[in-house]
Amino acid sequence: MGLERIFKAESVAVIGASKDETKRGYQAIKTLQDEQYEGRIYPVNPREKTILGLKCYKSVLDIPEKIDLALITTPAHTLKNILADCADQGAAGAVVIAGGFGELGAEGKRFEAEIVDVARAKGIRIIGPNTSGMISVDKKLNLVGLKEVPQGAIALLTQSGNIALTLITEAGLKSQMGFNYYVGVGNEADIKFHEYLEYFTEDPDTRVILMYVEGLREGRKFLQQASKTTQVKPIVLFKSGRSATGTKSAGSHTGALAGISEVARSAFRRAGIIDVENSDEMFPIAESLASLPRINENSIAILADGGGHATIAADYLTELGIRIPELQKETRDKLAAILPTNASLANPIDVAGGTDQDPAVFADCAEILLSDRNIHGLLIVGLFGGYGIRFSEKLAFIEEDAAHRMGKLVSKSSKPIVLHSLYNFAKPHSLDLLRYYNIPVYDSLEIACKCVEALSIYGSYRRESHKTSNFQLNWGAKAIPEGQEIIYNALAEGRNSLLEHEAKELLRLHGAPVSMDRLALNEDEAVKIAADLACNVVMKIVSPDILHKSDAGGVMLKLKNEQEVREAFKRIVKNACEYEPDADIKGCIVSRMAGEGVEVIIGTKIDDQFGPIVMFGLGGILVEVVKDVSFRVLPVSQDWAASMLNEIKTAKILDGVRGRPPCDKKAIAKLIEKVSEVVEAYPVIHEMDLNPVIVHEDGLTIVDARIILSEENMEKKKWLSSLD
Amino acid sequence: MGLERIFKAESVAVIGASKDETKRGYQAIKTLQDEQYEGRIYPVNPREKTILGLKCYKSVLDIPEKIDLALITTPAHTLKNILADCADQGAAGAVVIAGGFGELGAEGKRFEAEIVDVARAKGIRIIGPNTSGMISVDKKLNLVGLKEVPQGAIALLTQSGNIALTLITEAGLKSQMGFNYYVGVGNEADIKFHEYLEYFTEDPDTRVILMYVEGLREGRKFLQQASKTTQVKPIVLFKSGRSATGTKSAGSHTGALAGISEVARSAFRRAGIIDVENSDEMFPIAESLASLPRINENSIAILADGGGHATIAADYLTELGIRIPELQKETRDKLAAILPTNASLANPIDVAGGTDQDPAVFADCAEILLSDRNIHGLLIVGLFGGYGIRFSEKLAFIEEDAAHRMGKLVSKSSKPIVLHSLYNFAKPHSLDLLRYYNIPVYDSLEIACKCVEALSIYGSYRRESHKTSNFQLNWGAKAIPEGQEIIYNALAEGRNSLLEHEAKELLRLHGAPVSMDRLALNEDEAVKIAADLACNVVMKIVSPDILHKSDAGGVMLKLKNEQEVREAFKRIVKNACEYEPDADIKGCIVSRMAGEGVEVIIGTKIDDQFGPIVMFGLGGILVEVVKDVSFRVLPVSQDWAASMLNEIKTAKILDGVRGRPPCDKKAIAKLIEKVSEVVEAYPVIHEMDLNPVIVHEDGLTIVDARIILSEENMEKKKWLSSLD
Repeated sequence: MGLERIFKAESVAVIGASKDETKRGYQAIKTLQDEQYEGRIYPVNPREKTILGLKCYKSVLDIPEKIDLALITTPAHTLKNILADCADQGAAGAVVIAGGFGELGAEGKRFEAEIVDVARAKGIRIIGPNTSGMISVDKKLNLVGLKEVPQGAIALLTQSGNIALTLITEAGLKSQMGFNYYVGVGNEADIKFHEYLEYFTEDPDTRVILMYVEGLREGRKFLQQASKTTQVKPIVLFKSGRSATGTKSAGSHTGALAGISEVARSAFRRAGIIDVENSDEMFPIAESLASLPRINENSIAILADGGGHATIAADYLTELGIRIPELQKETRDKLAAILPTNASLANPIDVAGGTDQDPAVFADCAEILLSDRNIHGLLIVGLFGGYGIRFSEKLAFIEEDAAHRMGKLVSKSSKPIVLHSLYNFAKPHSLDLLRYYNIPVYDSLEIACKCVEALSIYGSYRRESHKTSNFQLNWGAKAIPEGQEIIYNALAEGRNSLLEHEAKELLRLHGAPVSMDRLALNEDEAVKIAADLACNVVMKIVSPDILHKSDAGGVMLKLKNEQEVREAFKRIVKNACEYEPDADIKGCIVSRMAGEGVEVIIGTKIDDQFGPIVMFGLGGILVEVVKDVSFRVLPVSQDWAASMLNEIKTAKILDGVRGRPPCDKKAIAKLIEKVSEVVEAYPVIHEMDLNPVIVHEDGLTIVDARIILSEENMEKKKWLSSLD
Repeated sequence: MGLERIFKAESVAVIGASKDETKRGYQAIKTLQDEQYEGRIYPVNPREKTILGLKCYKSVLDIPEKIDLALITTPAHTLKNILADCADQGAAGAVVIAGGFGELGAEGKRFEAEIVDVARAKGIRIIGPNTSGMISVDKKLNLVGLKEVPQGAIALLTQSGNIALTLITEAGLKSQMGFNYYVGVGNEADIKFHEYLEYFTEDPDTRVILMYVEGLREGRKFLQQASKTTQVKPIVLFKSGRSATGTKSAGSHTGALAGISEVARSAFRRAGIIDVENSDEMFPIAESLASLPRINENSIAILADGGGHATIAADYLTELGIRIPELQKETRDKLAAILPTNASLANPIDVAGGTDQDPAVFADCAEILLSDRNIHGLLIVGLFGGYGIRFSEKLAFIEEDAAHRMGKLVSKSSKPIVLHSLYNFAKPHSLDLLRYYNIPVYDSLEIACKCVEALSIYGSYRRESHKTSNFQLNWGAKAIPEGQEIIYNALAEGRNSLLEHEAKELLRLHGAPVSMDRLALNEDEAVKIAADLACNVVMKIVSPDILHKSDAGGVMLKLKNEQEVREAFKRIVKNACEYEPDADIKGCIVSRMAGEGVEVIIGTKIDDQFGPIVMFGLGGILVEVVKDVSFRVLPVSQDWAASMLNEIKTAKILDGVRGRPPCDKKAIAKLIEKVSEVVEAYPVIHEMDLNPVIVHEDGLTIVDARIILSEENMEKKKWLSSLD
């Protein structure tokens, strides 16, 4: 990887060093000196002798030692040579500030690719270009120019310098937690999000990784790394660019329904990432996760003095799905012994003025509550920190004692305390003490609740993390010869889609529960198939030139006997010829009439950021109007597929409503798993659309299936050649 | 009303005055003295001669002048006598601190009612009991004990002292806007929310009313007053207690579906109230509305220096429904002339470092943007206020100049500027200047966006406010004799519900589009009605003892001819007798088979807080699973009813999907209006359930109708007696 040498660099060359105070090449050296960077700094500028008291070199090649890292502040066009020189001088990496690359469009992208080629050839890694820089806080290696970055255990990865500035400012002002790394990823031309992530995962001093993301260049690799990272430490991520409408590839339900943001969100969640909705919550949530034990059983107590705050917190946490359970009788008895009679011992607990004379009662209550085995965390809301301000200075000392006790209690109990105080702004010493013990303090009640939620989500995730996916696709590995044959034939005929019966056969070959549809080339065959099926049948036209079979009069239902089958065959072929005179008509598919059931739809597509994804939703009017669907990035196991069914808003319909029997959810999950397997087995599959699928009480019927192939943009040629 | 004399009191008696510093009776006098209350203070305590240098009276009756107001800090049991005495001494009102009333349950409620009876009899009004007190800031009349309440134009009405403390603390810290009144409404035993609202509406110094509400005692009177108030000034309301589950009266769809919170929210919106979801947003939104002009056309520009903040703001405002339109060409040209070439002139506008040397360019841009006729407000996000901090102190002066210019620009253009700055905490003078000009500054991007939303919602509301409802019911006024007859007969028979044909007839009498259902008492009548209808018919059992007709085998469909009708009549009556041997069978209703259409449901019930409400939703599986319904507080005009149709998530289904024709939305709206009229006309109606209603391309069919009557809890006796 080489990132270790970059982040722990013992020597830095500043290329484009300057005496002009307004230039980055000046500011960078000044910052390194001001912050007392312990490594060697080598200014490089052919026109200067010394800069800020340091000897200046004409070229990086003149530096008398091998360097670890270069900061390049010169314009884009100078980069190729400079990067090569830096590599020759031993640099493991370069931070490239200049813009003028991929962000300017196609030409910039080509240029960016050339720069990356040089770097790869020479074995040097690039942070950026178009980056605000990098800070390795422990090493005092500050290549950003932001001063007074508070030190701590959060690694910050960002696509916006402004957001980084916001977070660092907030940390300095409101927290004792800070950062150990800052990386402005810039254009991610070379080093990508997932590589930084890998480095921070292994870094023992990093407790939380905080990310601001506008778009992912290599979404799948990111998910693969993230799912490893979150087994070890939390990732807190804010994704902006939500309102940018997702891809809308026409002609596919999946395409039209897949807002990129929903796909990303479901993938993030599955990778164990804490997905932050509100930018105000980014730092507080990272701070809480970096400071506190996790909530292991999704249930907490709320402690307050007086109404209002507790009510709001209880409302909000309930909406967030956090349980606020009944206390054990023993707990209530202990509380009753120390609180006034008008105190509320239900959860939330209201001390009702019982702390007015002695705010250390908060610590007593905290001890009692955290020893309740149904309670796995504590949210204290309202007035703590303010008793010394409101009533008497003496009470401030008692609050400080309570802070010491609560701080130790968190370590001892391994259960977190999150504190909301409306006196936070007044900076009473008791609240600083809490922060010293890694108990964060918030002046926003809602943000405190969101921190509780994050501690609980991550706690639950870690307990269940054996269930996670690694997002590894094994392209082509599970292909079987008969399946390859079907696809090969279609491609050989110049088609970019499989016919309905081919698509179904492909699924059947992989063990999907497909009804026995068969292709009839003529009337007699149709009659024979219908006789074999021994029930009412459906007949549908089969032609690569007719996509919308119903529109072409190419579908006939409920055919009861030989005569009806014969007439239907003639009629369908005639209709099809009239609809599309040049159509290549292969025959008719003959199938069993689907029984009663719930209509669902399953589709796959190739997402720009994450590769193959699968969508599940209810069919019919619901899927069109409510857009009630769920997504997963492939591959998907049967378990994960089952979780997709519960995610839709109308999930109840699958369990049977209005006296209908529950439908076979296991069969759906199995079909989704098989769909996942098929897409993975044949990388040439671009989209699949099973629509509708009728799910019965026992089993299901795939009424129509469509598979689109694409030989483009992938290494399929290789795979196809293996067919020869 | 008398509230004027309370809020402007020139003299206050403090009953329960004390020398003990920990007592409210001491603190109240101390606060009045410290804050230099300009009126006269009369301590009352039989055991003291003087308190805090003031002569102490044995009884309020001993005070040598008529008093305006009493603060009563003595316990609950003393109240009756003291209130009477205060009234005798001329007091217009009393602030009653003591708890121990309605909040303790039934006995407390009775006691509370007795106190109110005394007050009413004596002509004195009560704030509270169980209140944190009241402050009239202008008069320095502070009966709460909270010090340093910042003065301003916001009237604060709260059910939680803690929340008031939070808001006042926040105002003092972060704003130049403050409060002119504070009222802790307490138990609202006498003076209710709507009465305070009325007073603040008329008070010329109040620009915004900010409310924290846990529950409303008289919801409808509140809505009536609120809808008047919001024509003049905004109400900002945070409702807590959301997770308290709503009423779930069994046996009624409406009951089970009506989460109280949805009903309240829709009513608040309709009354023009700004309904705040997040307690963090309460003060900022009130501040913005009290400080800035409204956004009149729901479209704004976003101005930023660099990415990140603008992206987040654009995402969020888009989600909130605020338009961020294209700029006029002229605007873009003017911006291009002053910004660097890499600036983005699309909306959001990114100055891309164009303000680094001269932050007054923000003011230039603001002038250009607010002169664009498509732009009705401006949100500036990110770095303003920090140029002097980041780059050079000199830039601070330029920022100050920009602040002066932007401040004047808001007055001149009558379009608001909302500012987000991550340097807010550093308190640069430029941001204080903006506040001086009534431009609020926020360090939360999301809160700044919510303020923009509030300015826009209220702006749109005021432009359309002729459409509002006054929430006035005219009980019984529109009743007609035939309708009264139907209800009277049912009641006379001891029934608490109308039979299906009676319910439909009642609706028909009021002009609702009801199909010609008729009751057949025997086979022959059934045959005759079917012949009259001259089409396939439905027959349904009619019995007050059979609520679920289908379960009883009491419904038969698609009856084609005389024979089928005869057989069906026999069969239905037989089934019903077997199902419920003692059932009083009235006959069968004979109706036309409903044609194709969309199934909807319309219901009414009596809400605890707001009185009669109506619900609309799609029928069938959708209403059961998606719970996709909308509510209105009655009365509802056809226009308001039409707006209910658009509010459901599945509204598109009404417009026709999958090739179905659009359904007759006007007919639905008309039916809802008629339902509203019927409920208003006959106060004895407790619930109505039209389920299902089939809506056709032209017209609709009410397939089943149920009306529940209740003679309880209303002044219906009077109305019923008028029938004799």
